[in-house]
Amino acid sequence: MAARQPVFESAEKETGRVEAFSDGVFGIAMTLLVLDIKVPPPGNGTRLAEALLRQWPEYFSYVTTFLTVLIMWMNHHKLFRHIHRINHPFLVLNGLLLMGVTLVPFPTALLAAYIGHTGERTAAAVYSGWFIVIAIFFNLLWRYAASRGRLLARNYDPVAVAAITRQYRFGPLFYVAAFGLAFLNVAVSVGLCFALAVFFAVPERSARR
Amino acid sequence: MAARQPVFESAEKETGRVEAFSDGVFGIAMTLLVLDIKVPPPGNGTRLAEALLRQWPEYFSYVTTFLTVLIMWMNHHKLFRHIHRINHPFLVLNGLLLMGVTLVPFPTALLAAYIGHTGERTAAAVYSGWFIVIAIFFNLLWRYAASRGRLLARNYDPVAVAAITRQYRFGPLFYVAAFGLAFLNVAVSVGLCFALAVFFAVPERSARR
Amino acid sequence: MAARQPVFESAEKETGRVEAFSDGVFGIAMTLLVLDIKVPPPGNGTRLAEALLRQWPEYFSYVTTFLTVLIMWMNHHKLFRHIHRINHPFLVLNGLLLMGVTLVPFPTALLAAYIGHTGERTAAAVYSGWFIVIAIFFNLLWRYAASRGRLLARNYDPVAVAAITRQYRFGPLFYVAAFGLAFLNVAVSVGLCFALAVFFAVPERSARR
Amino acid sequence: MAARQPVFESAEKETGRVEAFSDGVFGIAMTLLVLDIKVPPPGNGTRLAEALLRQWPEYFSYVTTFLTVLIMWMNHHKLFRHIHRINHPFLVLNGLLLMGVTLVPFPTALLAAYIGHTGERTAAAVYSGWFIVIAIFFNLLWRYAASRGRLLARNYDPVAVAAITRQYRFGPLFYVAAFGLAFLNVAVSVGLCFALAVFFAVPERSARR
Repeated sequence: MAARQPVFESAEKETGRVEAFSDGVFGIAMTLLVLDIKVPPPGNGTRLAEALLRQWPEYFSYVTTFLTVLIMWMNHHKLFRHIHRINHPFLVLNGLLLMGVTLVPFPTALLAAYIGHTGERTAAAVYSGWFIVIAIFFNLLWRYAASRGRLLARNYDPVAVAAITRQYRFGPLFYVAAFGLAFLNVAVSVGLCFALAVFFAVPERSARR
Repeated sequence: MAARQPVFESAEKETGRVEAFSDGVFGIAMTLLVLDIKVPPPGNGTRLAEALLRQWPEYFSYVTTFLTVLIMWMNHHKLFRHIHRINHPFLVLNGLLLMGVTLVPFPTALLAAYIGHTGERTAAAVYSGWFIVIAIFFNLLWRYAASRGRLLARNYDPVAVAAITRQYRFGPLFYVAAFGLAFLNVAVSVGLCFALAVFFAVPERSARR
Repeated sequence: MAARQPVFESAEKETGRVEAFSDGVFGIAMTLLVLDIKVPPPGNGTRLAEALLRQWPEYFSYVTTFLTVLIMWMNHHKLFRHIHRINHPFLVLNGLLLMGVTLVPFPTALLAAYIGHTGERTAAAVYSGWFIVIAIFFNLLWRYAASRGRLLARNYDPVAVAAITRQYRFGPLFYVAAFGLAFLNVAVSVGLCFALAVFFAVPERSARR
Repeated sequence: MAARQPVFESAEKETGRVEAFSDGVFGIAMTLLVLDIKVPPPGNGTRLAEALLRQWPEYFSYVTTFLTVLIMWMNHHKLFRHIHRINHPFLVLNGLLLMGVTLVPFPTALLAAYIGHTGERTAAAVYSGWFIVIAIFFNLLWRYAASRGRLLARNYDPVAVAAITRQYRFGPLFYVAAFGLAFLNVAVSVGLCFALAVFFAVPERSARR
């Protein structure tokens, strides 16, 4: 296809660099999460096994966040299968989304530090609230690219595109629910974030690819 | 095109690796910024929401720096659409630019730590001063590559190239202004850096791509 | 080949982005390990050379872990020579494997901190135990991709594929042994992990490529 | 060319992934260096400008190390223009070289912390000594790949290859000199490391590409 449409070929190359850059940012953000899991200081009288188990909020936040960012990366991946061209506003919108992703280690560390302490509601609200922000950035990016096929492949499939738009519209709502729940019950709010990560990781039958 | 011009094909491949390497460095520098946003220690008597709000200089520096480095990445991207070949001095100049970019987390952390404390003028001067240095490295890189079309595509567009050269000449001046303002009024100096980041993020009509 | 099989061409591209993303994650995880090697604070009365030598568990853990993750990366590399297509469950399984890899700096830091202190058995058990988990994720990824050639090249070599499946089945067992040994003798357990890293780094004659 | 030599095509793709992985590791190692430059704590009575100037060993080590790793990356880049195939031992040798590179932030932080303190000779010896190790790994990698053209392009240029081999033979010697000087005069030893970085960054006339 590329060989027959030289105009697209160069566009493809552009997308390539944005994708590689985004991949790098996603990958680093996911890898930096480990820095929040602290080694219990040796020789403090507690048995190490016990000290490690007591750190469960760090592991729990780690897994929830890692899976959530993984799903985001997969969604980013999926969008870029449809997007073939780039322009200045698109790069900025993608940059804002990446800013959202790179900040994720902060609310994660916040949640890990505050589960079980005074302030855990605020921490849980910041955690789920930040995912609302990212979900909004995802919507902005996709809508800008997809609106009247602006940056899509010339022969894009309007049905598939409309399906993504519809699906993305509901994404933020789940995190709005988790955000509201944070003020009522932290365990339920954080549990919902975890459940969402697992739910989206399990493949839907209709969208196997 | 590549198939018909084997000489360019190998040059293209060279640029590819430099671009990928540079993308990695930009991406990591942008992601490391989050390490400067510290989690307030739990159980210190302050309400978490209040403690988080009091940290606004960290968020402000984060956003300003992230957007600024994003713009730099987009500019780097834009230059490499014109640059088709590489040589030893070019790799060194690109390396100096990357050195400038990787250092950015330091003045950012400095600014975040000193806003509102004694020394904030010095911090703001270092912050904007460092962007002058990077702007100069950008000029050196571009002028070396573009001078008499040294590393550009054979069929490069002299008008577009001259437009970039002109545009880049003024880049450092804005940061020189922010640098000078740092000694008079920190808020205005830092506000200018923020405004510049936002200004360049908003697309110009004439350069949509 | 790509030119003749347009279906594969797009599949190839998909694998490309997953590989690049995975490479980034492996590379960052390997590079972050250095953050666990601490500079002895100056002016504390001990001679620096002595202070550096006393830190040998940090160097030992560093080398063992680096080589182990390097082998994992080479194995990942090797699997992807056979894998040509991707789908949603595969991306999730690959993500779980990467989660395993990104966590590696934590057990490494744990081991470095506890060798020679109370709790070293627990630390050694966590260290080797984590490699069991990663080995299991590797098996899940490969079996999902290879089972009835699900995601392999159309013309895949069943003998080579079966050889990999067989080889991978035994991978976790070595780490199960190291895990069990951790409760008897830490030096032997950790030495086995080191020996495994070196053993797999030395090329087998039959699998030179 | 690729289209006519399918065997090389797949080999080329292999090198591609090793190069991308290595680029990532080089880039991250270079970017992590900034974490060693600490922000002076606010409100400690010293003027910030003065406190920043007193940190000159951190900046000096940063620049020296950054340039040195940049040169290494450029050399890696240069070698891979000749190397077209990979095999298991080559990946391990490349991995050892990357291990050397990822460790570089440690001797750099050591040097920055000890310049001007007791132990600075040891720190300078470790710093230059580590570059000897990396130079040896570079020699091993290149000699393995180049010996009887093992992994080079089929139509490799024996004169260019022999020139690289000769050049690399002398690389470690400069760092052996810096290592020996560390025990006599730290300033001269570290100055030599800096001079070497600058010297190799300035292009030689005969090897412009």
